[in-house]
Amino acid sequence: MAITVVGSVAFDSIETPAGRRERCLGGAATYFSLAASFFTDVRVIAVVGEDFGRRQEEVFQSHNIDTRGIEHTAGKSFFWEGSYLDNLNEAKTHNTELNVFAAFEPKIPESYRDSEFLFLANIDPVLQRRVREQMPDVKLVAGDTMNYWIKDHHAALLEVLKGLDILLINDTEARMLAGNNNLVLAARAVLALGPEALVVKHGEYGATLFRGADSKVHGAKCFRAPALPLEEVVDPTGAGDSFAGGFFGYLASKTEQSPAAFRRAMFYGSVMGSFACERFGTERLQQLTRKEIDDRFNIFRELTHLD
Amino acid sequence: MAITVVGSVAFDSIETPAGRRERCLGGAATYFSLAASFFTDVRVIAVVGEDFGRRQEEVFQSHNIDTRGIEHTAGKSFFWEGSYLDNLNEAKTHNTELNVFAAFEPKIPESYRDSEFLFLANIDPVLQRRVREQMPDVKLVAGDTMNYWIKDHHAALLEVLKGLDILLINDTEARMLAGNNNLVLAARAVLALGPEALVVKHGEYGATLFRGADSKVHGAKCFRAPALPLEEVVDPTGAGDSFAGGFFGYLASKTEQSPAAFRRAMFYGSVMGSFACERFGTERLQQLTRKEIDDRFNIFRELTHLD
Repeated sequence: MAITVVGSVAFDSIETPAGRRERCLGGAATYFSLAASFFTDVRVIAVVGEDFGRRQEEVFQSHNIDTRGIEHTAGKSFFWEGSYLDNLNEAKTHNTELNVFAAFEPKIPESYRDSEFLFLANIDPVLQRRVREQMPDVKLVAGDTMNYWIKDHHAALLEVLKGLDILLINDTEARMLAGNNNLVLAARAVLALGPEALVVKHGEYGATLFRGADSKVHGAKCFRAPALPLEEVVDPTGAGDSFAGGFFGYLASKTEQSPAAFRRAMFYGSVMGSFACERFGTERLQQLTRKEIDDRFNIFRELTHLD
Repeated sequence: MAITVVGSVAFDSIETPAGRRERCLGGAATYFSLAASFFTDVRVIAVVGEDFGRRQEEVFQSHNIDTRGIEHTAGKSFFWEGSYLDNLNEAKTHNTELNVFAAFEPKIPESYRDSEFLFLANIDPVLQRRVREQMPDVKLVAGDTMNYWIKDHHAALLEVLKGLDILLINDTEARMLAGNNNLVLAARAVLALGPEALVVKHGEYGATLFRGADSKVHGAKCFRAPALPLEEVVDPTGAGDSFAGGFFGYLASKTEQSPAAFRRAMFYGSVMGSFACERFGTERLQQLTRKEIDDRFNIFRELTHLD
């Protein structure tokens, strides 16, 4: 089943202990789409400037990602510059230029309207909600957000949460959103805001899925996927979006989103996140094969299973 | 098979967001022994003062822990006072009184000498080594250490590592010992110092087992056990020692320490660590039943296994 994703398509200049890259193709919607494209059809809604050319378009095309919803306007694409020199778990932002993204008004192509899955990547919750409202019949809606929206756009974000089936955020964001430092209690509080399921990403320690309003952890409603211990994290940019793409892409590839499918989706999310870190930007995702993905899925199984 | 453990038996005054307790029975050897006692015979080597009375002795006796190696001397037992008010993952030490522990000279009772397993809890590496040398015929030796010994008693610690089969430490300690921030590379460096296996404890995120000098992570030589997301961490004191007790106790209960046994041992370690946090001091470990342990083992399986 097809996923429509709305979010940023951007250029990133990134510095990590492994080196530096100028103006890589990036943005949450890009990472998400590439990761999800290995599992199902993906359709992107975004806005880009004149610097987004045939080479960038080709990255999407070669993964059969529908780009009819990428609006091309005069000006430059969203640009982000950041580094991870002190701490690979946290980016230090040096420069953010919203450029054409500042006036982004998501427009949903007619051909996207039969999408059964919708992913609202990390953008202004007002825009997330607008897209959500225009696609009332989707089967499953997932979304992401970040500290900035949690802190300064709380009311708008709460409206988005009411329309979400699955929220994917990291530890810090979950604790901030709930106002509670205990992860179980924070998860319960977040689930009470709307989502049926919450995925909390722990970076190098994996991720936890909480399901149901009571988020029972002493039962079947909680599931932990590991992350792969990596010898070298070349660039963690986009790992969370790639996790979301693997997770949601896998779910969308199933006719039924059973608890068992959710567990596998968590593993595929971690798998895609681990690949994303291995090269700068989307380099690794661009070169990936489905066989490599399934091989790594089996490594994750071996890494965590008793037998 | 019996385990001999050498380490501290102490009194702890602990403050956490859940409250405060004065002079609980504590110490690494106490937590370790109680946790391991659910799996195998345990024999303790420690020193206590006159404040260690019948009530404390009874805690060990009721778990069939051999206390003939606990030396009673004039003075007071090791005392530690700490709090976890800002951060449940890191204790703030307010007071440490070594007392009788300052002159601790471990003496191995004759009746302990046929122990096939030896655990060197976190004490001065000079003492760890002395005990290790007096028990040359043990089948498996595991040990713990901490930042203080890594930093200021490095040479003595390196001697201990040469005689260890398994080292159990936390993330920070592993990175400090290896001088490398990447966990995989740190693990490889630590394993090159002697141990056949390294268990790195990640607190609320579980633990990772690295085996073999090359610590391959893209294969069977690495294993991750989760921690249980807990609604309330009453007191994290001794969680690491309880992990070690569950882990090593389970291994000692097996005639063969196969890779499969190591995996289960990791789970039992996490299980015992999770129980330890549920009450102050050793309260929860004291009241525990084997059935509760196995029930929680199954919860850990459900928390991590795809099917």
